[in-house]
Amino acid sequence: MRTLDLSITSPPSSSRYCCRCGILSDLGNLLEEAELKGPFFIVSNPTVGPVYGRRVKESLEDRGIAFSYSEVPDGEIHKNLLEARRLYERMMDAGLNRQSTVIALGGGVIGDLAGFAAATYMRGIPHIFIPTTLLAQVDASIGGKVAVDHGRAKNIVGSFHHPRLIISDPEVLSTLERRQWASGFAEIIKSAAIASASLFEVLEKHSLTHFEEDYTSLEEIIYEVACIKSSIVGADPFEKNVRAHLNFGHTLGHALESVTAYRRYLHGEAVAIGMRGAAMIAVELGFLQPSVAERIDELLSRYSLSLSLGTIDEEKILEALMLDKKRGLHNVKFVLLKNLEDPMVTDLVPSDLIRSVIRRLKSQ
Amino acid sequence: MRTLDLSITSPPSSSRYCCRCGILSDLGNLLEEAELKGPFFIVSNPTVGPVYGRRVKESLEDRGIAFSYSEVPDGEIHKNLLEARRLYERMMDAGLNRQSTVIALGGGVIGDLAGFAAATYMRGIPHIFIPTTLLAQVDASIGGKVAVDHGRAKNIVGSFHHPRLIISDPEVLSTLERRQWASGFAEIIKSAAIASASLFEVLEKHSLTHFEEDYTSLEEIIYEVACIKSSIVGADPFEKNVRAHLNFGHTLGHALESVTAYRRYLHGEAVAIGMRGAAMIAVELGFLQPSVAERIDELLSRYSLSLSLGTIDEEKILEALMLDKKRGLHNVKFVLLKNLEDPMVTDLVPSDLIRSVIRRLKSQ
Repeated sequence: MRTLDLSITSPPSSSRYCCRCGILSDLGNLLEEAELKGPFFIVSNPTVGPVYGRRVKESLEDRGIAFSYSEVPDGEIHKNLLEARRLYERMMDAGLNRQSTVIALGGGVIGDLAGFAAATYMRGIPHIFIPTTLLAQVDASIGGKVAVDHGRAKNIVGSFHHPRLIISDPEVLSTLERRQWASGFAEIIKSAAIASASLFEVLEKHSLTHFEEDYTSLEEIIYEVACIKSSIVGADPFEKNVRAHLNFGHTLGHALESVTAYRRYLHGEAVAIGMRGAAMIAVELGFLQPSVAERIDELLSRYSLSLSLGTIDEEKILEALMLDKKRGLHNVKFVLLKNLEDPMVTDLVPSDLIRSVIRRLKSQ
Repeated sequence: MRTLDLSITSPPSSSRYCCRCGILSDLGNLLEEAELKGPFFIVSNPTVGPVYGRRVKESLEDRGIAFSYSEVPDGEIHKNLLEARRLYERMMDAGLNRQSTVIALGGGVIGDLAGFAAATYMRGIPHIFIPTTLLAQVDASIGGKVAVDHGRAKNIVGSFHHPRLIISDPEVLSTLERRQWASGFAEIIKSAAIASASLFEVLEKHSLTHFEEDYTSLEEIIYEVACIKSSIVGADPFEKNVRAHLNFGHTLGHALESVTAYRRYLHGEAVAIGMRGAAMIAVELGFLQPSVAERIDELLSRYSLSLSLGTIDEEKILEALMLDKKRGLHNVKFVLLKNLEDPMVTDLVPSDLIRSVIRRLKSQ
């Protein structure tokens, strides 16, 4: 047999996260500094576009930078192949070539959809992300995961494609609803729980209102959480090991989102319930001190994340857990804490225990 | 401004090309040796599946390897997002997870479509490719380009995703039509022209019939061309520079395929005309000795690749050239030879010269 081995070494790709109050107006500068080339193609939605699109456009126009602007409908339900296809068409119409850059302006849905289109258009063109929700600023914008949903499966079709630039402007959060703030804080609490006991303590000293009012503290927190996620992603870009720790609270969280068709809970809200469930499981298995589980519970309440499972059918949740794409071949994978800053991944949680924890979450 | 730089280093990925007469029956072994895990998902089409599917399935069954089998309709026209979507659904139904492997059994269309589905399912799962055309054995199977077409643009949606294994069995070519053989030889001649004068001379000494009858010589040639492509791809996996040399004959070739809606010419046939056109351009610009252009012409004729442009509207060809996605911002990029083994890329070919060369190709 004649064999031939081809080893493909990719040049390291880089992603720069920039955070500052008011940074949005500096976009034109930042694009030039990053040596990104046009034509640029801005993707937003009818909710965010009318509010922040103008500032983005003006910043480009001031520098004489050419761009096209396009909106996709708002909401997870539109993060699908059909909308990706429409984007490809508009990208062709706009004459985008391999040197062009996509600018995603919006929350996680826009980041995922526009990022996926950029990842696959002409086998990948650069994109930048301007996250306009707290959740996207601290979580979705970092790590290069882009995807669309298909049928019953969330993010089933996707790629790893890091934005060249992430432009995080805390000031754009001023127009967010309170639920959106809380949803973002769920991921902030998650990051603190798995990787920074000191951040956890800072959060324990404050509350949602403090950060909503003090943009200096908010900027600090956003940057710190971005650093945590970056360092985990940098250690394991393709989720072969430690990156899975970022899924603390997500096993049950994803199942809840799926069972409720992504309508009842915001992502962070579902993750908050998932973190409480994972903490209960870890306590029951003897990994985690009940006092730490209580601190997690209290911190979630402090940030308006004390949510109920209500009337959701427990069997449906179990079914959805089995379909979670992060499971291995047989068992459902959970991220459990042994302590703050000390997560582990296991697929050996007995199904009876999962069931009883779901019941406890329902009865609260 | 707080900034944070994340540098993403991908581990080198590897792709092994295996070539031998009769190797297809060894598939089960090869999968085990490569430590690829199931469940496996075979993708073929109604033309190839009934002929070679059984041998593939038996080889897996012999080893007790679990798999699912799926067919997509035959032809470039089905290499689109709709079929990719159907594949995702069947992949979900078959319970494929991140450890599963897709097996593409067919020509370049199957390789592109099933490869794209593998590249994007769960952000990328492994795939192997069993090319069943000469063209795919020497060209499409190597280099990791996977894609689907959309609207007027070929391969506009895609990715780089190298098959873990490429299983090239010259024996499966015995069922190919003669036009398919010739089409494969167009890419063989292209590789010789840009990278191996000695291979070019070997080809000049033989003919299509020789290789159709002598599988030992055929295996040697296939392997040699695979080595040429591998070394170029290895030097430039993401087509930033020298990989573009592989597009010798493809600028005009792609335009001809596009103008004739991929119906009139097989890929290699269009590339053959493109190579003749590119040789004429290089001679006119004074880069290439007329005698070398003549040798290319004669070699193409020798392998039944002396094709006419016939009645195709010259203006439409020019239009299609402008839409070729490999063009830079302004001008059309051509790969021109200065000599055998000495290609260069230029976007400075005057449009009048392109026009006159198209006229000459039409009049022949």
